[in-house]
Amino acid sequence: MRTQLVATAALVIAFSQSSHAQLPQLNLMPMPASVQTGTGQLSITRTFSVGVSGFRDASIDAAVERFQRQLSRQTGIFLLPQPGAAPTLQVHADHGRDAVQKLGEDESYELAVTSSSANLSAPTPLGILHGLQTFLQLVEITPTGFAVPAVEIKDHPRFPWRGTMIDVSRHFIPVDVLKRNLDGMAAVKMNVLHWHLSDDQGFRVDSKKFPKLTGDGSEGQFYTQEEIRDLIAYAHDRGIRVVPEFDMPGHSRSWFLGYPDLASAPGPYKLEGGGIDPVMDPTRESTYKFLEAFIAEMSKLFPDAYFHIGGDEVNGKQWDANPKIQEFIRAHGMKNNQDLQAYFNERLEKILAKNHKIMVGWDEILRPDLPKTIVVQSWRGPASLAQAAKLGYRSLLSSGYYLDLMWPAARHYAVDPLSGEAANLTPEEQARILGGESCQWAEWVSPENIDSHIWPRNAVIAERLWSPQNVTDASSMYKRMHAVSLDLEWLGLTHISARRKMLQRMVGTANASTLKVLADVVEPVKDYNRWSDDKGPIDFHAPLNQLIDAAYPESDTAREFADLVHQYLQGNAKDDRAAAEIRAQLTIWRNNDAKLHPLLTESSLLQEDIPLSQNLAMLGAAGLQALDYLSRSEAEPDLWRTQQLAVIEQAKKPVAGLLLQVTAPVEQLVEAAANSTTR
Amino acid sequence: MRTQLVATAALVIAFSQSSHAQLPQLNLMPMPASVQTGTGQLSITRTFSVGVSGFRDASIDAAVERFQRQLSRQTGIFLLPQPGAAPTLQVHADHGRDAVQKLGEDESYELAVTSSSANLSAPTPLGILHGLQTFLQLVEITPTGFAVPAVEIKDHPRFPWRGTMIDVSRHFIPVDVLKRNLDGMAAVKMNVLHWHLSDDQGFRVDSKKFPKLTGDGSEGQFYTQEEIRDLIAYAHDRGIRVVPEFDMPGHSRSWFLGYPDLASAPGPYKLEGGGIDPVMDPTRESTYKFLEAFIAEMSKLFPDAYFHIGGDEVNGKQWDANPKIQEFIRAHGMKNNQDLQAYFNERLEKILAKNHKIMVGWDEILRPDLPKTIVVQSWRGPASLAQAAKLGYRSLLSSGYYLDLMWPAARHYAVDPLSGEAANLTPEEQARILGGESCQWAEWVSPENIDSHIWPRNAVIAERLWSPQNVTDASSMYKRMHAVSLDLEWLGLTHISARRKMLQRMVGTANASTLKVLADVVEPVKDYNRWSDDKGPIDFHAPLNQLIDAAYPESDTAREFADLVHQYLQGNAKDDRAAAEIRAQLTIWRNNDAKLHPLLTESSLLQEDIPLSQNLAMLGAAGLQALDYLSRSEAEPDLWRTQQLAVIEQAKKPVAGLLLQVTAPVEQLVEAAANSTTR
Repeated sequence: MRTQLVATAALVIAFSQSSHAQLPQLNLMPMPASVQTGTGQLSITRTFSVGVSGFRDASIDAAVERFQRQLSRQTGIFLLPQPGAAPTLQVHADHGRDAVQKLGEDESYELAVTSSSANLSAPTPLGILHGLQTFLQLVEITPTGFAVPAVEIKDHPRFPWRGTMIDVSRHFIPVDVLKRNLDGMAAVKMNVLHWHLSDDQGFRVDSKKFPKLTGDGSEGQFYTQEEIRDLIAYAHDRGIRVVPEFDMPGHSRSWFLGYPDLASAPGPYKLEGGGIDPVMDPTRESTYKFLEAFIAEMSKLFPDAYFHIGGDEVNGKQWDANPKIQEFIRAHGMKNNQDLQAYFNERLEKILAKNHKIMVGWDEILRPDLPKTIVVQSWRGPASLAQAAKLGYRSLLSSGYYLDLMWPAARHYAVDPLSGEAANLTPEEQARILGGESCQWAEWVSPENIDSHIWPRNAVIAERLWSPQNVTDASSMYKRMHAVSLDLEWLGLTHISARRKMLQRMVGTANASTLKVLADVVEPVKDYNRWSDDKGPIDFHAPLNQLIDAAYPESDTAREFADLVHQYLQGNAKDDRAAAEIRAQLTIWRNNDAKLHPLLTESSLLQEDIPLSQNLAMLGAAGLQALDYLSRSEAEPDLWRTQQLAVIEQAKKPVAGLLLQVTAPVEQLVEAAANSTTR
Repeated sequence: MRTQLVATAALVIAFSQSSHAQLPQLNLMPMPASVQTGTGQLSITRTFSVGVSGFRDASIDAAVERFQRQLSRQTGIFLLPQPGAAPTLQVHADHGRDAVQKLGEDESYELAVTSSSANLSAPTPLGILHGLQTFLQLVEITPTGFAVPAVEIKDHPRFPWRGTMIDVSRHFIPVDVLKRNLDGMAAVKMNVLHWHLSDDQGFRVDSKKFPKLTGDGSEGQFYTQEEIRDLIAYAHDRGIRVVPEFDMPGHSRSWFLGYPDLASAPGPYKLEGGGIDPVMDPTRESTYKFLEAFIAEMSKLFPDAYFHIGGDEVNGKQWDANPKIQEFIRAHGMKNNQDLQAYFNERLEKILAKNHKIMVGWDEILRPDLPKTIVVQSWRGPASLAQAAKLGYRSLLSSGYYLDLMWPAARHYAVDPLSGEAANLTPEEQARILGGESCQWAEWVSPENIDSHIWPRNAVIAERLWSPQNVTDASSMYKRMHAVSLDLEWLGLTHISARRKMLQRMVGTANASTLKVLADVVEPVKDYNRWSDDKGPIDFHAPLNQLIDAAYPESDTAREFADLVHQYLQGNAKDDRAAAEIRAQLTIWRNNDAKLHPLLTESSLLQEDIPLSQNLAMLGAAGLQALDYLSRSEAEPDLWRTQQLAVIEQAKKPVAGLLLQVTAPVEQLVEAAANSTTR
């Protein structure tokens, strides 16, 4: 399941002089650059207090207040600092921040905790923000109360650009949902929200100059400029830059409902249905006049120095079909549509430069004729990342970080921006690789389930981009991801709690526990296999309230069961404890369908999952029989293995877009049982 | 467990001509006055729309918008009404509402649902609000999608005053938590928030005239006047009146930190510790001068016609100890402290009347010398309710509705304002009984767990006050309470979800499922047995993060297990299905401690629960043995019963303030086993 990107890193980064095998057992994510554990622990009691020295402004005070509120939530302790008492945690920033956060600002910090007090110091408030998050992650319940272990941490990020892209076009995501995701990003030290604000399915920003963009292209679901300013301030408070993306010239159908003259083919256009053919007309001066005015307005609204113009997936069909455009291509000595897009990008880049913005685009924009200031975001594969760096461009990795592909965390975790071709770059070239971004495309998410599609997996991408390159142990990662996942729910994210409510909805007022048993072992199909073009266009207004919408992208239960079976089969087949645990789990699965089946038939949301539940029961039965043979070292009947493997093959097929993730370990048990007489 | 209030009602109220045995099987709470079920169902799809005719204003539109949002949340369907299509639900109000909601406004409505459309009509928008809630409760998942069954409902409340009192003094409850509770109240058609705003432990309203009330008496935890106006508007939008309570002359220590001259004994005063001795000095004119100014300010802030002055629990110790006060009593020909309080109340009533407010007070204020306009709230017992009505006063019942006593829902449900002595009143006297209020005193609640102390039990009190008197079946009530409880979580209440997070906090990053097994069968000790005076004053700043704070007031698991055992013992002892279920449950309990014990020892929050978990294991084992004897009809050893009963006696004792609620059914199994040879 690992990609070819897994490779030994050429770059050596000091990590407490230790290999990943000696990672400290602290539930920190991202793992800091250097951690020295000490002796004893700092008790967290109601008198816990924070003192601020050095640079101080309202944003530091607000950060401390948020920290105290979160500490209180995590522990359930009402904090009542005693006036005049020495602070438990002393915070010291050397100097302030710029009003607009810059790429590459110093984010380092040092945190020292002893059994009597803690000190957090940093050159800038950004380091303070990160250090406070580290402190919160260190808080744990112990036999003597809540405490933070004594520790000395020196920390700084490996890459300066650590982002999450959120698509709010295909399904609109309201401000409050974005805010809790910003809280989550801050908790794992991410520093860029890449806000994918327009696409074929909706234009989400109110433009005063072009009100029909949202008036006709948003179905009433968009952000006011006041909401945008508020969100940017919210992000800034948390050390996060906001980079807007307006996807051009493709993925722009929503623009054309209000402004059809921008398009390369006559309208009328509508938001629903259709593919990605609609594209802007780069041959008309009126297009650039529109974009000059639009970008001038948006450049004021979004203060960040970087401005994302999309640039992906122009299929050229509208250009091919338009004689005037083809004539323009010939007249200007261009060879093809790619040249035309390059011409468009050059014009766009000049408009952005006039507005003091640096252009960012998906990897299709990479052409040597653009100035070296631009940033290329690799999504189609890691090759363009290294290629861009070689050509002198700065670049970001997103290939391998697509959260909507439903990959397990370990697969994202194994993707490193400086592996593969990038590993062979010169240090100067490698320095052009700014970091990366996870991407949450919104075909299948709503405000209700988007958190569980982003979290907790986003935390491991955050770690990949922050922590030393040799922090790669997946087992430690999963343990720490679990801890950070629980903390994130205290921040207000709903990635765990929403599934419970969604499962309950599916069964009405019945007990949802048997549905949970099934939900716990399934995952949505991977990559883009949920939908295929022969089903027609995706219906973006369809409810997302079925089992596939509630299922976590990765099943912890399945992973842990596979580990258990692996351990059992590697070791002594008579390992009683492992055998008993496996047997108990298989028994639950075998018996579950009998109780769940009536609920599935009674709910329109669940009827398509009937075979899934039956398959789980059969897997449970197969596994139990295998276990019996194994425990008795008994020869199985001739046909038994063949029959069981047929059952397992059937269970491997997706049902209702869901994969039963426990087929592999059951198959291993069956195969082991078939070979057990030879042991 | 039922109180003496359970009695046959003398008053006959029509309920669809049916006794409670024929209650319709709809998950409605409160049950409407009249329900006629029809044939077919109305599908809820994405094209669902609401039309408004008759009276229309912004508040009706806002109500419809909230309704659509909640419908969308409950179903997960994105609503996309088709322009021009006939509305699925037509709403019609005859006329508008007053700017300030009045006691006794018409709240009736009629809702008719067919398989093609629905009609909701009401004389006033209040009825529309209630009817929309009824519609939401009717929505259910079916094999063919979400739907509302065909039904004809004619509904109106039995009592005009259906309130929830929330104490925000002992633990401060922020506005957002109050708002979600107002949403919950509106969902079950309650119409009064009685806001207990001051008490010994804190004064929670910003006064412009007397800023030291909160400046010195709130530890910074109070509502600004803007927040109060906002909350009142929020409540008004939902058909809920807000009645403020400032408790006087007792329960007023928090006033005295800033204004010690109000007190009957010299200060200084502090919020922490101490009993209920501090009381205002009713003999000084300066006290009334203060209260004149204060009440004038608060009367403007709180528009409701009713104003609660508390008046409870004046123990008179400070008055006894103050010679000047004793001299005043003698000089004015009073007999005792009660006379002095009556004098205070009369003065207070005149100030209120000047501000056009009607006085409400706890039952201690009941004295024939007060004008008949005042309202008496019975809390010490139902007798004062009837007594007040006989004397010509209007009254409210709260005795029997104290949510902080941790009673099971059925016990509150059995308390009827018109039972007991009140049943013998004349109709004219009975009409003076306005209704009642549940009371959530805040000794042991925080913003985190208050929802689970109020909900879902508050819904059954709401039903008692709204529905016909003959709606009393507890089994139907529990089924419907469960349904409304699930709906309330979609409204944003956290009465279910908060416990899960709190349990997880207790075990750190470990799996909380074994702790949940224990938590599911415990209840906090009842009445005021959590604390006794010999422990000293309650520490209101102590964390509320232990198992007792997370436990639900009533254990569904225990109740259902008791029902199962009852059914098994009443029927054939060889009833295999019941026996198997009982055995499975007992096995889980017996085995749970082995897995849970290590977690309990590792967490300071759980160590005191170690014996509780052991007791559950022993109960499980005792029950399993009993089951074995019963299923084999085998004679048990002589000493076995005695030994098991000793185990059960031990398990009955509270541990860490928690009661194992499954002792009774296990005891029944053991007793049955002991007698099984005689069967």
